[in-house]
Amino acid sequence: MTDIRKIEAAAERLRGHATVTPLLSSPFLDELAGRQLLVKAECLQKTGSFKFRGGWSAVTALLAEQKSRGVIAFSSGNHAQGVALAARTLAVPAVIVMPSDAPRVKIENTRNLGAEVVLYDRATEDRFAVADRAGGARGLTLIQPFDDEEVIAGQGTVGLELVEQAAVFGVNRAEVLVCCGGGGLTAGIALALEKHAPAMIARTCEPEGFDDVARSLVSGSIERNERLSGSLCDAILTPSPGKITFPILKRLCGAGLVVSEDEALHAMALAFEHLKIVLEPGGAVSLAAALFHGQDLKMPTAIAVVTGGNVDREVFYKALERFC
Amino acid sequence: MTDIRKIEAAAERLRGHATVTPLLSSPFLDELAGRQLLVKAECLQKTGSFKFRGGWSAVTALLAEQKSRGVIAFSSGNHAQGVALAARTLAVPAVIVMPSDAPRVKIENTRNLGAEVVLYDRATEDRFAVADRAGGARGLTLIQPFDDEEVIAGQGTVGLELVEQAAVFGVNRAEVLVCCGGGGLTAGIALALEKHAPAMIARTCEPEGFDDVARSLVSGSIERNERLSGSLCDAILTPSPGKITFPILKRLCGAGLVVSEDEALHAMALAFEHLKIVLEPGGAVSLAAALFHGQDLKMPTAIAVVTGGNVDREVFYKALERFC
Repeated sequence: MTDIRKIEAAAERLRGHATVTPLLSSPFLDELAGRQLLVKAECLQKTGSFKFRGGWSAVTALLAEQKSRGVIAFSSGNHAQGVALAARTLAVPAVIVMPSDAPRVKIENTRNLGAEVVLYDRATEDRFAVADRAGGARGLTLIQPFDDEEVIAGQGTVGLELVEQAAVFGVNRAEVLVCCGGGGLTAGIALALEKHAPAMIARTCEPEGFDDVARSLVSGSIERNERLSGSLCDAILTPSPGKITFPILKRLCGAGLVVSEDEALHAMALAFEHLKIVLEPGGAVSLAAALFHGQDLKMPTAIAVVTGGNVDREVFYKALERFC
Repeated sequence: MTDIRKIEAAAERLRGHATVTPLLSSPFLDELAGRQLLVKAECLQKTGSFKFRGGWSAVTALLAEQKSRGVIAFSSGNHAQGVALAARTLAVPAVIVMPSDAPRVKIENTRNLGAEVVLYDRATEDRFAVADRAGGARGLTLIQPFDDEEVIAGQGTVGLELVEQAAVFGVNRAEVLVCCGGGGLTAGIALALEKHAPAMIARTCEPEGFDDVARSLVSGSIERNERLSGSLCDAILTPSPGKITFPILKRLCGAGLVVSEDEALHAMALAFEHLKIVLEPGGAVSLAAALFHGQDLKMPTAIAVVTGGNVDREVFYKALERFC
């Protein structure tokens, strides 16, 4: 089971390899949000998303013999890049299975990081079957994108960092808003908060139409999305929360927040203007929740974990054209 | 005289008020640079540039009576915003004298931070005379943009931070490339390195046509630029290095580096793609030097201090259109 000790051990392994991402703020965004708003900028993590943490944590936890055979992962792009860079740095072979409609920048970067990329059709093919076909015979170890104890531990290091950074600003009570796909990052952060910041609570943030986690938190059991594609928030279009992550979310998180795609694009434009960071739509939903759904928040301070910045130029332009 | 004790005292005053900006890296940029490249991202500082540090340091060092009368500053925009936010936070009145051709975003932000903005014509009016006219009768204290001991001390905290952050990556020997206008930031960083990282050396970076500091370092005395405007690198178009800063630069810095405006725009595009940060041209010249002038560098590691991100959307587009 992932617990605080596993997260702290992952933090040790990540030290000197992952970027300590900053906790940003802007008086303009405080004003817009109507409360103190701190932004944990994981788009600045190596490979442009928090996923490098989980990838590094998982690959470094493998046995030597598993490392020599190699790893396989399936991902729309951020987990792909995180695992690919971790594997390359540690001289471990990597096969990455990606949907063919993933942003071009993510597919290119994953290839450029030395991974063998296998594309599949998100609408007609099952990614588990594709992964099995690509890696089965070679004895590759599958690095799950979220339902993996060491991956969750790696993502949880975001929570350790933000608690320490918020304390410097005198903040120990806050709602921590997290962009949520399968729930690995949110679960890891929630476990870190439980131990180190009991007056902070994690809340999941999702795009409309893909609010499986929010609905699961209401019903108390795992719900699925009807659609599997069709949103600019490609990074977090997971069909349902994980078997490992959901019990953690259910035990520790507040109600889920849901934002529109337009709100995510608007948050991207405001992050460009006031924080000087580049976000992808799926990485901006937490900031959108803080800025545009303040009525659903309860505390005077919100910490938005913005999770990725791997966006094609055209989508970035679209956000700026419409909302700058 | 600014010394390491003044810098350390400024760091104490800034704690909990300034953002601890991250030291970023990307395997793609390492490859392009042909060496290990770390990027200290001061564009992520409050108000979008390192200038908040110097502004806060200077305003907090004033006597109570000076604070109650207020402060005045002249600036193309980044010092303006830094002083304005520091003053507003500390309830000190602020008048800011700005050139009328400064980027729109900088003028607007300074006004929105509660400062009284006075515009002047950079080509025909003397900014000191304008400042004197606007503030003389009210007994405002002038906060110089770089030739001020407490401002230099505040900027020097960038050096303290980057030394500590580089050590986590095992780096204690490097050339530290700094975007240089009047030399306040470079002087402060050089003093911090002298004490805490004697195997690191600061090097100034400037745009072609505005290389007063590089020429001054060659001749050994203060040289001036022929032109005072006409570059997208508006943040660092200072006529000459300062009387306080230049002796420090002369004693501690290596030879100055000079890049073209196109190289600065190219660095902005690469920072968007690979670091997920927003840079203005003047804030990107250090990164441009690391990426495109490697032949002028001597050590296996470069640390580029990128200094600001207050860029109008059109200029940002221009960089992306041409170089993405």
